[in-house]
Amino acid sequence: MKHKIGIADTMFARTDMAQFALKAIYDSGCSIIIERYTVPGIKDLPVACKKLIEKDHCDIVLALSMPGPEKIDKICAHEASTGIINAQLQTNKHILEVFVHIDEAIDDKELYKIAEDRTKKHALNALALLKGKDALQKYAGKGKRQGHADAEAIRE
Amino acid sequence: MKHKIGIADTMFARTDMAQFALKAIYDSGCSIIIERYTVPGIKDLPVACKKLIEKDHCDIVLALSMPGPEKIDKICAHEASTGIINAQLQTNKHILEVFVHIDEAIDDKELYKIAEDRTKKHALNALALLKGKDALQKYAGKGKRQGHADAEAIRE
Amino acid sequence: MKHKIGIADTMFARTDMAQFALKAIYDSGCSIIIERYTVPGIKDLPVACKKLIEKDHCDIVLALSMPGPEKIDKICAHEASTGIINAQLQTNKHILEVFVHIDEAIDDKELYKIAEDRTKKHALNALALLKGKDALQKYAGKGKRQGHADAEAIRE
Amino acid sequence: MKHKIGIADTMFARTDMAQFALKAIYDSGCSIIIERYTVPGIKDLPVACKKLIEKDHCDIVLALSMPGPEKIDKICAHEASTGIINAQLQTNKHILEVFVHIDEAIDDKELYKIAEDRTKKHALNALALLKGKDALQKYAGKGKRQGHADAEAIRE
Amino acid sequence: MKHKIGIADTMFARTDMAQFALKAIYDSGCSIIIERYTVPGIKDLPVACKKLIEKDHCDIVLALSMPGPEKIDKICAHEASTGIINAQLQTNKHILEVFVHIDEAIDDKELYKIAEDRTKKHALNALALLKGKDALQKYAGKGKRQGHADAEAIRE
Repeated sequence: MKHKIGIADTMFARTDMAQFALKAIYDSGCSIIIERYTVPGIKDLPVACKKLIEKDHCDIVLALSMPGPEKIDKICAHEASTGIINAQLQTNKHILEVFVHIDEAIDDKELYKIAEDRTKKHALNALALLKGKDALQKYAGKGKRQGHADAEAIRE
Repeated sequence: MKHKIGIADTMFARTDMAQFALKAIYDSGCSIIIERYTVPGIKDLPVACKKLIEKDHCDIVLALSMPGPEKIDKICAHEASTGIINAQLQTNKHILEVFVHIDEAIDDKELYKIAEDRTKKHALNALALLKGKDALQKYAGKGKRQGHADAEAIRE
Repeated sequence: MKHKIGIADTMFARTDMAQFALKAIYDSGCSIIIERYTVPGIKDLPVACKKLIEKDHCDIVLALSMPGPEKIDKICAHEASTGIINAQLQTNKHILEVFVHIDEAIDDKELYKIAEDRTKKHALNALALLKGKDALQKYAGKGKRQGHADAEAIRE
Repeated sequence: MKHKIGIADTMFARTDMAQFALKAIYDSGCSIIIERYTVPGIKDLPVACKKLIEKDHCDIVLALSMPGPEKIDKICAHEASTGIINAQLQTNKHILEVFVHIDEAIDDKELYKIAEDRTKKHALNALALLKGKDALQKYAGKGKRQGHADAEAIRE
Repeated sequence: MKHKIGIADTMFARTDMAQFALKAIYDSGCSIIIERYTVPGIKDLPVACKKLIEKDHCDIVLALSMPGPEKIDKICAHEASTGIINAQLQTNKHILEVFVHIDEAIDDKELYKIAEDRTKKHALNALALLKGKDALQKYAGKGKRQGHADAEAIRE
């Protein structure tokens, strides 16, 4: 039976992040069914993700959003993250949070690149997690980052 | 069978936000049943929304409120938001949060306009979400805002 | 059958807030059964309120407390509020939070007045909510405050 | 049947707070069964308390800890408190939180005194709460504090 | 029947923290089954830990991660901690959080030492907790720290 990946995205984001995920999944050559759910904003994501799992039987979900730069936006992102973690605990399924904060880039061009890189990498992480709990073990402790360069490993 | 939209609103708000929602739904021409629940303040909204879903069988709910400008008001809004997200996860229904912060406007006139615009747009979002999870997909990543002008889209 | 109102209060508060609630309910002339539960402090309120609903079959509860002025007191109040909202979601009953922050008054005399006014008004709100979800609708968006003067309504 | 009090404590605390609780309970002359559960740190308390209630059938629990002075310690204490409130809501039993913040005393000697006073008073509060929901009513609104002097009552 | 310890770790961490846990468990001579689950980042840990308990039947879990130094990293760690506490309450099993904050060390060398010490000590704490709720009682109130030197005990 084919695996099903859910993609929850927002009208609020400033670029169509779902396209990055769809391209990464397509390019991977994996045969996967996609269910997509578009909601107004970041706080609507937790229940959308939970419905993708419980109603549409997705095995894993990507929650895509682009929080604004203001203090209130940070609080919204925090509330959404809390809800997304709760939704995972209630369903025993992963929901990979792909939030790109508008103020983490110096300009729109960089913002676009971060969004593309982070979304694509997490789409591949989702595919890996579908294979089992040891699929990402080779990267454990490797300072892997999404949207930015990896961090350096530390040694004794 | 007709869809049912819940509207939960507060005595605390400084204008009758529910009227905006009712007008937008009426103007849409959609045949919808409305259930309204008025509570004292923002922290009373989560359980009111949940009861609208579980006791009154609403398919979706609008949670309308107008948090004050003080630090304590921001905390109240955060607590209410957290509760509203939990209520959604417990019912698998959307509750669209329409909070207008009193300090996001320069004067009462602008505050009124934000409240009207945000409430009406989210009332239409609620109608769209009743149609299915792809009804808002055409707006995905378009920088849509409620209460303010849309944000610019970013490109490669 | 008579309605039952729960009153949860604390040893920590600096005046017997429950007396205000009891007086307001008595003065209303409504025939109501009261269950009272006194706990040490604000963080003990959520479970006390939940027990008033689940063990003592209260239809609605007033949670009375008086958080201190320090940063740690604010955090305690936030934790209690979060718990009170969760208790409501778990029981589908309202718990009206009546918290009087010691630093919102300029002196003890004003603090007493705020405590009295807020508690009495919320006791009446509780009585109204027992009548149904539209009992407070006439006050919707009227800028109603408890403990302070009402806010001005805004217009187009 | 004898009542059972749970005591959850930590290796992190800088003095054996459980001894204070045990002494207060012993000195009260009440015939009580004690179950004690020692965990590494404050964040391990919520599940320990819940297990004391659900596995060891405690009627009430004391959660003893001594959060450090750093910002990260405050966040840990907040997370633990939130968990302790949730554990209470899930079990309908009181868990009295006895947290002594290392920075609330001017020196170790005062810290010790606060820890002793707060723990003993809350042990007695636990005994009282076992008697029923009105056992502490005579102290309602009396400005009772644990670890510090009581606050002054306010009047009209 | 042999006990089972779960180890949940991340790609984000800058060193393979799981190796420290594995070594400590091996060196202890205890006969234990290990289940390991590697996820992308800290927010993916709560559901991974819960699955280790519910799907893989682990008796206790170590949640290993290394939050970054930025404000957003601190918020992520807070969200993860909240989720980990919830996962414990939902399963009645301990999940020992082993978070090493990148900014608690002056350089990478010290960071490595903290990570090693904290992980090994918590691995041994996990083994102790498997023996029962009094296995750590001899260390109660002893100011035990993981990753840093123990704190001094206070006396009367």
